[in-house]
Amino acid sequence: MYSLIGELYPICRSITGDGTRQTLALLGQEIPLQVFEIPSGTQVLDWTVPKEWNIRDAYIKDLSGARIVDFQKCNLHVLNYSTPVNAVMPLADLEQHLYTLPDHPAWIPYRTSYYSEKWGFCLSEEQRQSLQDERYEVCIDSTLADGSLTYAECFLPGSIEDEVLISCHICHPSLCNDNLSGIAVATFLAKHLATLNRRYSYRFLFVPGTIGAITWLARNKEHAPKVKHGLVLTTIGDCSGFTYKRSRQGNADIDRVVEYLLRERSEAHSIEDFTPYGYDERQYCSPGFNLPVGVLTRSFYGRVPEYHTSADNLDFVKPQQLGASLDLCRQITSTIEHNRTYTNQSPYGEPQLGKRGLYRSTGGRDPELENIARLWVLNFSDGRYSLLDIAERSHLPFTLICDAAEALLGAGLLRESNCH
Amino acid sequence: MYSLIGELYPICRSITGDGTRQTLALLGQEIPLQVFEIPSGTQVLDWTVPKEWNIRDAYIKDLSGARIVDFQKCNLHVLNYSTPVNAVMPLADLEQHLYTLPDHPAWIPYRTSYYSEKWGFCLSEEQRQSLQDERYEVCIDSTLADGSLTYAECFLPGSIEDEVLISCHICHPSLCNDNLSGIAVATFLAKHLATLNRRYSYRFLFVPGTIGAITWLARNKEHAPKVKHGLVLTTIGDCSGFTYKRSRQGNADIDRVVEYLLRERSEAHSIEDFTPYGYDERQYCSPGFNLPVGVLTRSFYGRVPEYHTSADNLDFVKPQQLGASLDLCRQITSTIEHNRTYTNQSPYGEPQLGKRGLYRSTGGRDPELENIARLWVLNFSDGRYSLLDIAERSHLPFTLICDAAEALLGAGLLRESNCH
Amino acid sequence: MYSLIGELYPICRSITGDGTRQTLALLGQEIPLQVFEIPSGTQVLDWTVPKEWNIRDAYIKDLSGARIVDFQKCNLHVLNYSTPVNAVMPLADLEQHLYTLPDHPAWIPYRTSYYSEKWGFCLSEEQRQSLQDERYEVCIDSTLADGSLTYAECFLPGSIEDEVLISCHICHPSLCNDNLSGIAVATFLAKHLATLNRRYSYRFLFVPGTIGAITWLARNKEHAPKVKHGLVLTTIGDCSGFTYKRSRQGNADIDRVVEYLLRERSEAHSIEDFTPYGYDERQYCSPGFNLPVGVLTRSFYGRVPEYHTSADNLDFVKPQQLGASLDLCRQITSTIEHNRTYTNQSPYGEPQLGKRGLYRSTGGRDPELENIARLWVLNFSDGRYSLLDIAERSHLPFTLICDAAEALLGAGLLRESNCH
Repeated sequence: MYSLIGELYPICRSITGDGTRQTLALLGQEIPLQVFEIPSGTQVLDWTVPKEWNIRDAYIKDLSGARIVDFQKCNLHVLNYSTPVNAVMPLADLEQHLYTLPDHPAWIPYRTSYYSEKWGFCLSEEQRQSLQDERYEVCIDSTLADGSLTYAECFLPGSIEDEVLISCHICHPSLCNDNLSGIAVATFLAKHLATLNRRYSYRFLFVPGTIGAITWLARNKEHAPKVKHGLVLTTIGDCSGFTYKRSRQGNADIDRVVEYLLRERSEAHSIEDFTPYGYDERQYCSPGFNLPVGVLTRSFYGRVPEYHTSADNLDFVKPQQLGASLDLCRQITSTIEHNRTYTNQSPYGEPQLGKRGLYRSTGGRDPELENIARLWVLNFSDGRYSLLDIAERSHLPFTLICDAAEALLGAGLLRESNCH
Repeated sequence: MYSLIGELYPICRSITGDGTRQTLALLGQEIPLQVFEIPSGTQVLDWTVPKEWNIRDAYIKDLSGARIVDFQKCNLHVLNYSTPVNAVMPLADLEQHLYTLPDHPAWIPYRTSYYSEKWGFCLSEEQRQSLQDERYEVCIDSTLADGSLTYAECFLPGSIEDEVLISCHICHPSLCNDNLSGIAVATFLAKHLATLNRRYSYRFLFVPGTIGAITWLARNKEHAPKVKHGLVLTTIGDCSGFTYKRSRQGNADIDRVVEYLLRERSEAHSIEDFTPYGYDERQYCSPGFNLPVGVLTRSFYGRVPEYHTSADNLDFVKPQQLGASLDLCRQITSTIEHNRTYTNQSPYGEPQLGKRGLYRSTGGRDPELENIARLWVLNFSDGRYSLLDIAERSHLPFTLICDAAEALLGAGLLRESNCH
Repeated sequence: MYSLIGELYPICRSITGDGTRQTLALLGQEIPLQVFEIPSGTQVLDWTVPKEWNIRDAYIKDLSGARIVDFQKCNLHVLNYSTPVNAVMPLADLEQHLYTLPDHPAWIPYRTSYYSEKWGFCLSEEQRQSLQDERYEVCIDSTLADGSLTYAECFLPGSIEDEVLISCHICHPSLCNDNLSGIAVATFLAKHLATLNRRYSYRFLFVPGTIGAITWLARNKEHAPKVKHGLVLTTIGDCSGFTYKRSRQGNADIDRVVEYLLRERSEAHSIEDFTPYGYDERQYCSPGFNLPVGVLTRSFYGRVPEYHTSADNLDFVKPQQLGASLDLCRQITSTIEHNRTYTNQSPYGEPQLGKRGLYRSTGGRDPELENIARLWVLNFSDGRYSLLDIAERSHLPFTLICDAAEALLGAGLLRESNCH
């Protein structure tokens, strides 16, 4: 994951344009991707697909010709979606177009202006202080023209049509945690799931933020209710503990599963209620869709100074944290896969487990706990309690409860309930 | 309000009689009142309107003719509803008819005997100790005869028929906090609301305690369900923090509104669950009516020593506290007026606020919070969440949420829901 | 109760056999019992009634003929349900059949092998250490043959068919707390209830654990829903505080009643959520039946070292604790009997209690509290709140609330609701 991030880092992404296409082409070498191009001007829900933006070069030169600010060194230097400019202008005029972070004088901020046409440069406060000449040459060699918005899906069919949605945004240029960490974890989660027998179908979305999610929802309005569980993945490679932001529903299965697993890990983490701002959960959880989609992150957006600055770089994300994030995602999907609801087929009194070889067996595991897990599954499998409900109520590990269910299913003592 | 209390203070009120009429005549100079006279003997729910009581004079004289206890000095001296008496009697006999407060030897208690015919005097323990003669002359020049019970309504029609009920009792003689403070705040709240465009209709009741509320309910049994929110106001002029006693329903809108506003004020206050004793909420919240009526007070009845004594006088209530109580009542009615429930008309994805001039506008207020408030209103306006629900959930001020709703309504993005 | 336990203590009980019959014969001298014999091989729910086990003698002799381990001294010495054996064998072989408690070297463990045919001896670790000879003579003079399972019911009809079930197990040999304490308290509770006018019908079950409860349920599958409240009684004679384990329903009336009474006693106690292991609640609370049956114990099973050992003897149970347990059981049944739900017949406004002599009466009790209790009962008797609900909500004693209800019922102000 870390070397994938390294490959993706230099690309200048935006909500449209070739940076997005290059990014998806690299991901397509890892997992099967279907890429969609949606023409500028297409109506998508309440929005319109904008013109496509592309950029080749940008700089501020002093009159000796030296590049003081150079897009080739860092693509954050350009206000993302800047209109083209090519002029010599007084410093006073140029200053109206400059963005810095006075509190972090060595960092370059990340700024965008998608829906109002402007141009600008982002630079470090130190660079700005060094601008002492009267006039400078500025150039942004960009185009904003009819074209298309690009997004991709990786679809892994399962034995049922109900879907798990994993979504990450792909519209940020050289920012590692906010955008590339989510892309990398999602990609490797897809690689992992591709090798398994799947009950659920999985749909991974690689979309530009906001407009991409809206575009996908517009094109899949009838299909959306198939999404039974979902996660937005981003800012998941840094050293903070996990933060889970609940879906708008608040107690959807995905919320219960992630909170259960975070509790079980007994590491510091935080759980946030849904709010209608943040990432693409804003769209998935809009009241018309109200999909059960939560957000899994480490540092919560906007709460660390590196957020949306050049300090969100290859040092800010760590291979070990990426690995732990992927592990948690695997546990989440595994729990979703196994969390079924059963009905006890012998609900009057306890079934006699001994005559079925299911009592005080002496396998590798503590036989007492195995027996107790079976009694829990039998007693609460009345069609209303899922295995996760039973694990939470019994304070026994989910995997032990699943093993018990499997043994009882094998003995014909359980039948899967339809209602879950 | 304080000078109105000063005017009302000397009048000898009871549950019937001319004291009530004089009181309502004074209130009628402030607000439009409709006065009702209900004849003695009228059946009202399970009760009967009693005989009317009037009193002209009362005293205990020593045999030298000096008035030891004098109704003209303080109308609390007479057991309220005393039958007439005119006799010279031994001190031993008189003592059967005397009420004092040994713990507060300078204070006169307030006592009544409405439904069992008796006579008696209330006096300070000090006065009682001074009674050393063998015989005294006692006189109560009262009448208890067929007449009527008097109460009044101030009705302020609104644009809908749903009503807000504000009730206060008017049956206590010279007691300032218990009775006059509620009367004064209710009167000035009515004056204020009379000047506004009202959505709800407001009905202010000035009724004798218990029998008056029962009489109104008996005469308005079919009408009562129009009451959607209600408050009993009393003991609201002293220096204690606010106490709100919930309606029997416990989580009616009035309960949520008052509790929300008290929390927002961040002053010490207390919230009490409904109990079936207290003031006229006993009647409004009887199970047959079960109206959403709470009680707003400062010192909770019976919890301060001044309660029902001559110490509940013009010093015990304060202009500043009366003013703050009126302010809170205005906030309550304003919140009720504005707390509507809307349905987002563009519920699939976020509507694009920028193209409607509703995003990052740079008005006088913090534009970020304004944007965030709009997102909250849009996301939760699905017909189930009221603006107060959204304010509580978002931890944003109710007024900011209302402004957001107004802006979105203006842009056609909301429609008012019927169901609230 | 303590002397009944003394009489029952020496009998060698098991899940079938003459020990059970002797036990029930002794109980039959105290209360009316109907005894049932269910033949071996009968299918009962998922189980089969096993062969009947009887035992006359058992010992381990050294070759001099001295009884080292002697069933006549303590019936725990035999692995309960042992198959017969009569042999001289090397110590090494015998050791495969010995059970001890190394942590409590003077105690004999209690062990069973009902459903897998084996033989064995239970002995103290000290006895085991003393076995130094090369060979020993072992004899278990038992029979395992077709016969029947024995259980009994004591049925006390009430004025309604709804039943209260009290169940205790009768299958443990010389163990006092685990089995005999429950039997004794249940027997004396039945004696007490037999002398009262009963609203509910009461059914006391004296059954062998697991298979006995399953047998009763199998034979009463249609009848079971008549059980509206139930308790399993066991380990209720020792010095620990009470432990109540909730029914599977978790907030059944029986749960609320027992928890209320335990709280009111203000002695240390503990409340446990339902778990699907323990005593016969496992069967009554299996999902097909889901009866409202809780478990009342003192030391919770398995949590004290004396559990299932020879230390659970006549010293471990105490007359005083047995008495307090019986008192609590009487309070439970009394509360169940009195906990009805009423509907106020004068629900509009407060009824005028004074004209009915129900206000400020001056009986022996605090008249204020009496009045307040009446107002609580009137206000909340809308068919949804039971008297226990009202007691909990008002923080007034249940008995005071019941007295209020009785007075109001006498005045025609209440009618019993059907729905409870």
